[in-house]
Amino acid sequence: MPTASQAPETLQFVDGQLILIDQTKLPGELVSFICDSVDQTHDAISRLVVRGAPAIGIAAAYGVCLANPATRQGFLDAIDHLATSRPTAVNLFWALDRMKAVLQSVDDDAELAATLLAEAIRIHDEDRQMCRDIGRHGATLLADCKAVLTHCNAGGLATSMWGTALAPIYHLHQSGHAIEVFADETRPLMQGGRLTAWELSQAGVPVTVLTDSMAGSLLRTGRIDAVIVGADRIAANGDAANKIGTYPLAVLAKYHDVPFYVAAPSSTFDLAIDSGDQIPIEERSTAEVSHPGGIQVVPDAAKVMNPAFDVTPAELITAIITERGIVRSPTTTKLASHLASQ
Amino acid sequence: MPTASQAPETLQFVDGQLILIDQTKLPGELVSFICDSVDQTHDAISRLVVRGAPAIGIAAAYGVCLANPATRQGFLDAIDHLATSRPTAVNLFWALDRMKAVLQSVDDDAELAATLLAEAIRIHDEDRQMCRDIGRHGATLLADCKAVLTHCNAGGLATSMWGTALAPIYHLHQSGHAIEVFADETRPLMQGGRLTAWELSQAGVPVTVLTDSMAGSLLRTGRIDAVIVGADRIAANGDAANKIGTYPLAVLAKYHDVPFYVAAPSSTFDLAIDSGDQIPIEERSTAEVSHPGGIQVVPDAAKVMNPAFDVTPAELITAIITERGIVRSPTTTKLASHLASQ
Repeated sequence: MPTASQAPETLQFVDGQLILIDQTKLPGELVSFICDSVDQTHDAISRLVVRGAPAIGIAAAYGVCLANPATRQGFLDAIDHLATSRPTAVNLFWALDRMKAVLQSVDDDAELAATLLAEAIRIHDEDRQMCRDIGRHGATLLADCKAVLTHCNAGGLATSMWGTALAPIYHLHQSGHAIEVFADETRPLMQGGRLTAWELSQAGVPVTVLTDSMAGSLLRTGRIDAVIVGADRIAANGDAANKIGTYPLAVLAKYHDVPFYVAAPSSTFDLAIDSGDQIPIEERSTAEVSHPGGIQVVPDAAKVMNPAFDVTPAELITAIITERGIVRSPTTTKLASHLASQ
Repeated sequence: MPTASQAPETLQFVDGQLILIDQTKLPGELVSFICDSVDQTHDAISRLVVRGAPAIGIAAAYGVCLANPATRQGFLDAIDHLATSRPTAVNLFWALDRMKAVLQSVDDDAELAATLLAEAIRIHDEDRQMCRDIGRHGATLLADCKAVLTHCNAGGLATSMWGTALAPIYHLHQSGHAIEVFADETRPLMQGGRLTAWELSQAGVPVTVLTDSMAGSLLRTGRIDAVIVGADRIAANGDAANKIGTYPLAVLAKYHDVPFYVAAPSSTFDLAIDSGDQIPIEERSTAEVSHPGGIQVVPDAAKVMNPAFDVTPAELITAIITERGIVRSPTTTKLASHLASQ
């Protein structure tokens, strides 16, 4: 979704309502999901109506503005409740922390609602600029690429505009550079097949969907010039949590000598943790694996596992792209310096 | 399916009919698919009602016996037609070659039908013994394993009894050795979730299903002691074609220093080809990827790829297990010597 004219907005806040594209319904139906309460926003985040680390942060910020009663305590309760909607993406906590800081900075209760809404709008606006900046920086890394592979959806549907991993692709496409994308379908919830393929098609970028198990032999053919993905939380040392299936892709990229890039805003960094081992990994309902689309594909007698994320160690990451620029071969020192810069 | 008393037979030939478990219906329904013609057998193989390289060979051999008219030309036509049912598993051509050789060795047309049926029964009987022998040999490699990872289904449902990759597991389980299996669901057709999990559960072997994308982080935990898979065709140098997703598993096993075993009967070797590059890879309907269970998960505007197999180079294979024994670090010379032995 390069521009608003080409595709609907992932998130909008209009007349006191948070309007989301219901991403659980794509690509079959393009319908809105309207939140006019904190509980509905919590539900939308938990059920992945809205998903993608940056978009979760924006949705949560607007969700705080839906507190009822719209009192100091009501807003605080909203912040606490929304923080329980999903555990891994740190952008959620980052956005809620910003809202809490604003809340604490306002003395006059009569000004609270307007000030909080202004902060949510600011988070949303910054996200658009972040997408443009990541697109510009990332495009320098992908300038010689004809075909890239991505996993899950770190595109416009995961943010407010171009996305993170897909931003350099939209940037290049708009510049007239011919680039095609191979999109892992991304079991269990098919964000690659359903969302990445949908938004790239809408924008006219050629896209081919493959099952996650096909990425290895595709990389072996030499057709893929780079792998680029988003992230849900990055530790101080550069270890990056992202959708389950990202880590094996990083190992495969290394084995085939293909660069592996992570694109994420600085709000995705959690400098409070040293390494990826400390990132909490959400374990989701086993039904997502055993009953895709409601159809049973695992017998009742078998156990099922369903971690939603895995962690890619920094040594497998060729470069991390943020809105501030590029960090090659990321380390704790390089990242600290990068994030301290303006 | 360790014994006939514990589970139904994958294939049976009774009163001139080939009776198959309809594997497209598992685990939801356990129903038979009855073939009383060559065309039905061709359809059953093409649609994966019966699948797994050894089982395809047996089904094709019985399918020849269903020729109508039951004349020399009728049998020859049946052999030619069944050879077009699937392209990758060489066991299909191996079994049909055996049937053709028998056909050519019989002078008296009145004896053709009985002689061909006897050969099909011999192929079936040999397969049972093959399963037992692979189980016995493979068990020596897995003797210290608590947990193994497998991909697709190379079990009883892929053969007439214990299977190939699962045979050592059944052997150990029956010997009282506690072993658990992690089964990749194996998109697009879910043979791991639907079939491997079903038959292991029936036999009382603990099994946990994961999406294919979870194998990387599972291997990283150190919980998996070995990876074991089947094969559909093995070139003279040991390069092995198997279900799509096998190759990345081999790369991941290597990266995590976990042994990677391929179990297959000698009928899976195609000594006419030097390396895996020459193995034809079946490209199946894109609907298997884009519309799992009939539900659209890829927009119409996107392209879809669906190779059914990939090739794992011999250098990633710790050992190949056949009914004749074990070949460690397979090479053309070692395999030629192994296959020439009795």
